[in-house]
Amino acid sequence: MTTAAEVLARCAQLDRFTASPAFLERVYLSPEHAQANAAAEEWMRLAGMRTWVDAAGNQYGRVEGREPGLPALLLGSHLDTVPDAGSFDGMLGVVMAIAVAERLRHRTHELPFALEVVGFSDEEGTRFGKALLGSCAASGQWDPAWWDLTDARGTTLREAFTDFGLDPERVADAARRPEELVGYLEAHIEQGPYLEAAGASLGHVTTIAGARRFELTVVGEARHAGGTPYERRKDALQAAAAAITAIERIGRSAGVIATVGRVEVQPGAVNVIAGRADFSLDLRAEADADRDRAWGLIHDEIVTICAARGTTFAWVQTHEAPSMPCAPWLTEAVVAGIRATGDPDPIGLWSRAGHDGMAIGAVTDIGMLFLRCHDGISHHPAESVRDVDVAAGLDALETAVLELALTTAPGGRA
Amino acid sequence: MTTAAEVLARCAQLDRFTASPAFLERVYLSPEHAQANAAAEEWMRLAGMRTWVDAAGNQYGRVEGREPGLPALLLGSHLDTVPDAGSFDGMLGVVMAIAVAERLRHRTHELPFALEVVGFSDEEGTRFGKALLGSCAASGQWDPAWWDLTDARGTTLREAFTDFGLDPERVADAARRPEELVGYLEAHIEQGPYLEAAGASLGHVTTIAGARRFELTVVGEARHAGGTPYERRKDALQAAAAAITAIERIGRSAGVIATVGRVEVQPGAVNVIAGRADFSLDLRAEADADRDRAWGLIHDEIVTICAARGTTFAWVQTHEAPSMPCAPWLTEAVVAGIRATGDPDPIGLWSRAGHDGMAIGAVTDIGMLFLRCHDGISHHPAESVRDVDVAAGLDALETAVLELALTTAPGGRA
Repeated sequence: MTTAAEVLARCAQLDRFTASPAFLERVYLSPEHAQANAAAEEWMRLAGMRTWVDAAGNQYGRVEGREPGLPALLLGSHLDTVPDAGSFDGMLGVVMAIAVAERLRHRTHELPFALEVVGFSDEEGTRFGKALLGSCAASGQWDPAWWDLTDARGTTLREAFTDFGLDPERVADAARRPEELVGYLEAHIEQGPYLEAAGASLGHVTTIAGARRFELTVVGEARHAGGTPYERRKDALQAAAAAITAIERIGRSAGVIATVGRVEVQPGAVNVIAGRADFSLDLRAEADADRDRAWGLIHDEIVTICAARGTTFAWVQTHEAPSMPCAPWLTEAVVAGIRATGDPDPIGLWSRAGHDGMAIGAVTDIGMLFLRCHDGISHHPAESVRDVDVAAGLDALETAVLELALTTAPGGRA
Repeated sequence: MTTAAEVLARCAQLDRFTASPAFLERVYLSPEHAQANAAAEEWMRLAGMRTWVDAAGNQYGRVEGREPGLPALLLGSHLDTVPDAGSFDGMLGVVMAIAVAERLRHRTHELPFALEVVGFSDEEGTRFGKALLGSCAASGQWDPAWWDLTDARGTTLREAFTDFGLDPERVADAARRPEELVGYLEAHIEQGPYLEAAGASLGHVTTIAGARRFELTVVGEARHAGGTPYERRKDALQAAAAAITAIERIGRSAGVIATVGRVEVQPGAVNVIAGRADFSLDLRAEADADRDRAWGLIHDEIVTICAARGTTFAWVQTHEAPSMPCAPWLTEAVVAGIRATGDPDPIGLWSRAGHDGMAIGAVTDIGMLFLRCHDGISHHPAESVRDVDVAAGLDALETAVLELALTTAPGGRA
């Protein structure tokens, strides 16, 4: 039986497949991606699974249930990373899914569904700027406009497909049909501090937050810093600074996560008043309505700030994803799994981060199990998870699968 | 007699000597610099002056006074530009100085001083990041540490000297001695809106503002935007935005010009809380004490902001120049010159921008005449000056020189 220690050792093994010896970075359709797929495939085979890579580079393993050809309960997460990543965001969920399949390999004749594990090929969107490419392909949501996306070297997504040995013309083959799947379960580190603060190993996810991202632009007038009195200034950076301050204030009061992570100023000289400031806005909330209301307040406040400073305000939305609720029947199984580890009252959290479930949820119900991580640190080499929590997570995920076996009729949800 | 129209035509001629056909950029020790020197030299010769280029690339012309070898009243400004410059910042003062020398060429036997015109070779500091190189050389303030400064292509200042045909070993030869000079008078566009607002063609300068520049750094913690609640954040950009807002507020109330023209954020991703923000501060005031008091207030306010957000604050001063007052006796001559144009009560202004007088003031008294420019626009192709104001400026500068001839004894100030 694959232990928590072995799971953590496999995560460490995956760290070797990186674009840089100095830090972990494994992006979509890279040589490292192929290496990580191959490692996962080997572990899937050891768990008794039949394996394949789909038309979008997603790594699959499958073991049949009580009869061949049943719809599959899909377990998994993703194998790609951000630059300078930690070892667990994504990979832990794939490795745990394989471990659970291995634990259940001699009980699959009891299951009213096939068991599949997937290592999605792109969740972070690091290489082409578009997230969830792997799970979008698997859920039949591939947009042909993406073929012309380029990476930092100018390679198009289409070229990257070919270089990886994939056929762009066949990407639709990666799409799963709803009738092939029972549901999707993912284990993932929380990427937040709430479980640690509550002293809990595990939690269940209520909803994956909907996100909206914007590029905000304030245009003023670039002028000589010395010669321009305050009353003549149209200082784009002063307006942006007031806007950035207002964004956090409004986000706090509206119960919404609002973050400005990027700002660029032109011309950007020490002795020239800023003529233009571009900055990003990332908005997340449990409920889409709260998020949209906060955006309305932020928008109106920046309009007011800009009017007072003689600057103009423009914005474009660069990303919008509706929130994705976890299905109650899958959540019940996850909660039963957590209870079986000795936690009588499992915590439910909404996920502030995006996950593959946001995409695969278009074709099948989803459920998620969160594992405690230290101090909420993620997207950073200091990302960490304790072996006792991984052990509990394996038990909970295995129990959840067995719970679903009891409540799920062949061919779909009971 | 050189007219205002001819002065403006000569400024336009200098526009041809640019590194780019698309915009005006003429930096220190460039081929364009040599071309501009040659054009100025030709005009100096037409005005009856003996000409030379000094050991730092400054272009000089000289005509003797009532006897050979008298100390010189130095008129001038600079011939270099910022990138995408206007036609008048610097050049107008050189061309006007030559025009005044030409107007006085048949009266030099009346003058108790020689008349010299200088086109300083570097005031803006565009190429090597250090301003006032030409006037620092002329005032004996050359710092050997500057030899290793590099331009954007990696060329050192030492190499640029050699490429231009100058001998780095002889730069000290450019230094003027106090006993060689009577004083320095410069005409310059205001680079501010005050004369235009007052409906005045001309003004006299009381003081060139002292400036201090700082690089400010706030360090927080880069974390996942989704997973980190507000109370756990150490958001460097939020702290910087609060600091930038405070800087303007304190600057306004302290009567000081405070500008943040540049900000850079790391890692600078839409979904990552900023771990570090670096931003610039440019402080100018008529009185150094006001400027320094404002810096103290700004410093303390940023310390408070950073403490409240769990971020750290660090700063380095990158530039400090004391204010340079204009000499009352030279200012009296400038005021007399402005009065002679029909303005009974000339406006006195402090210069928010730096000028060559800040450096040459180390070896001789300085005075400055400001000309109205449209809307204070400078360091921009839209920089403009009206011919009626240039005509008034020529009259005022000529009158000021003759006024000084009446009040100045041979060998120095009366």
